Amino acid sequence: MTGSVGLARVVEPPGVLPQAAWRLDARPEIAADEVRIRVERLNLDAASFRQLSGKHGGDGAAVRAEVLEIIGTRGKMHNPVTGSGGMLIGVVDEVGPASPLGLEPGDRVATLVSLTLTPLAITDRLAGWDGSSEQVPAAGHAILFGRSVAAVLPDDLPPELALAVFDVCGAPALTDRVARSYPAPVTVAVLGGAGKSGSLALAAAKRAGARTAAVVVSDQERAALHPTGLADRIAVADARDPVAVAEALGEPATVTVVCVDVPGCEHGAILSTAPGGTVIFFSMATSFAAAALGAEGLAADVTMLVGNGYVPGHADFAVDLLRRVPAVRALFEARLAGH
Amino acid sequence: MTGSVGLARVVEPPGVLPQAAWRLDARPEIAADEVRIRVERLNLDAASFRQLSGKHGGDGAAVRAEVLEIIGTRGKMHNPVTGSGGMLIGVVDEVGPASPLGLEPGDRVATLVSLTLTPLAITDRLAGWDGSSEQVPAAGHAILFGRSVAAVLPDDLPPELALAVFDVCGAPALTDRVARSYPAPVTVAVLGGAGKSGSLALAAAKRAGARTAAVVVSDQERAALHPTGLADRIAVADARDPVAVAEALGEPATVTVVCVDVPGCEHGAILSTAPGGTVIFFSMATSFAAAALGAEGLAADVTMLVGNGYVPGHADFAVDLLRRVPAVRALFEARLAGH
Repeated sequence: MTGSVGLARVVEPPGVLPQAAWRLDARPEIAADEVRIRVERLNLDAASFRQLSGKHGGDGAAVRAEVLEIIGTRGKMHNPVTGSGGMLIGVVDEVGPASPLGLEPGDRVATLVSLTLTPLAITDRLAGWDGSSEQVPAAGHAILFGRSVAAVLPDDLPPELALAVFDVCGAPALTDRVARSYPAPVTVAVLGGAGKSGSLALAAAKRAGARTAAVVVSDQERAALHPTGLADRIAVADARDPVAVAEALGEPATVTVVCVDVPGCEHGAILSTAPGGTVIFFSMATSFAAAALGAEGLAADVTMLVGNGYVPGHADFAVDLLRRVPAVRALFEARLAGH
Repeated sequence: MTGSVGLARVVEPPGVLPQAAWRLDARPEIAADEVRIRVERLNLDAASFRQLSGKHGGDGAAVRAEVLEIIGTRGKMHNPVTGSGGMLIGVVDEVGPASPLGLEPGDRVATLVSLTLTPLAITDRLAGWDGSSEQVPAAGHAILFGRSVAAVLPDDLPPELALAVFDVCGAPALTDRVARSYPAPVTVAVLGGAGKSGSLALAAAKRAGARTAAVVVSDQERAALHPTGLADRIAVADARDPVAVAEALGEPATVTVVCVDVPGCEHGAILSTAPGGTVIFFSMATSFAAAALGAEGLAADVTMLVGNGYVPGHADFAVDLLRRVPAVRALFEARLAGH
């Protein structure tokens, strides 16, 4: 099993996982369970691009030079300051005979594992990129390991829309799994229900037969979410205020999903969840200690899940939701259009 | 429901939960669902005592004065630097008619919720304490809310032993619950199996019918754990080294329990867990982001639980394990004796 997580690609320091490595071997020759992708575009993580652009005062040529330097030095696009990467789009070039990913040469795919662990080499000096946006046209190759995740881009959706869905596709899949693990009637409350992961989680909960409630931060978000019908109830409250959240929701939920990317939402989520219920934390701003100590301090018998971004079939599940629920698609398109 | 978490005791700032409050109202008069405890001893959190003692260069009188100052100012023993508290021992003085805690006047109890959220007043100026240890003889009163947790001290165990067990009693109870949720055969791997929470988790897993494996950090720990028979297999490895942990364990476990209180154990735990299995993180050093991104990067379909320190019946469950498994008791007694 160890080979398939990419240990053979780790150059320095030896013996760590690819994400923890300083440098990966990005040679194009693939092992039996690897896949080589012909790269078309990198999507840099927003935090990484912001740091690079800020450091260079918006000088696109300097940003481009540093991205090339990082990839050349590390064999992956792993920003050493932010620790973040991004994802990429490309076309499958060669599939090793033992690859379990189910890809075929010619498939146009997005990688759903971070660039921080993806061997990458660039051959065009990023000549088509002016360094002023996170979207980086690029030529070169990337390697997927046996244990990796890539999704074939759907023919019927613009790539930007598909990528936006892939980016949060763990949330609806895990919400579906957890909601269905309880006997009816199930209520699912989503903190941050008007966002990308939040709206998909609401749609998944509805399809799983649950009653849904959303907490949003403003009347504007309420106005955006209300006509979609995704939430049976919508409350406006600050998700960091536990008492306000619990009072706004009224009765506690069977499952509470945290999709608000600000620190301090743990106690509100715990207080909003019924005894025996489950809190799913999808926000990267979640504090482990605040969740653990909060539940203990509230004597709350709730199951608390670290939102795993990987659930088998998650990308197809999320794209299917987008196709079947026009309201979700409309929310995503509005966000992509900059609203 | 909001009243029972102690909101009426919050003085400043209004509207937050007691743990987040700067100041609580520690008046002795109890509400209908509250309980008043006559305090006998405070057990300061180790991190809190270390900070106070270090700040005052080991001057016990100065440490005592600052603890009195904190309790007097905040209405609770909530160290403003470390953010931590501790627990207390006392005798139940008065029980409100609507208290759900099942306590009787005269019960000798330990509070299992943190002192950071427990209204507390001291009446003896801590005269019996020299400020040189975490164990603080004290007179005064403390308040338990409706939603709170206290355990009656067992007659047959020394209080120090009971407290050491209560301190980690969430681990065996949750390990039991999760292990029993899988069909046999179940394997449970415990990272840090020779420690307090780790040995109780192993004992709980064994009693639940699981095969057990432990990862320990040294040959010395292996020698301490081996004769107990709690672990069917013991491997010596650095829990922060994912590849070493996975290789030491050999086959992946159904359930992996992390009881090692150092950062960086997330990826080893994930890599050691079989697809469909569960990782329970009990270490407060766990990084939420490392767990979430690690599972995604490894394409690991594992359920990851934030170890909730509260499971109904957890204190009785842990004490019962200690009584029935002499090897666990021996490990605890050796630790209390300073080995």
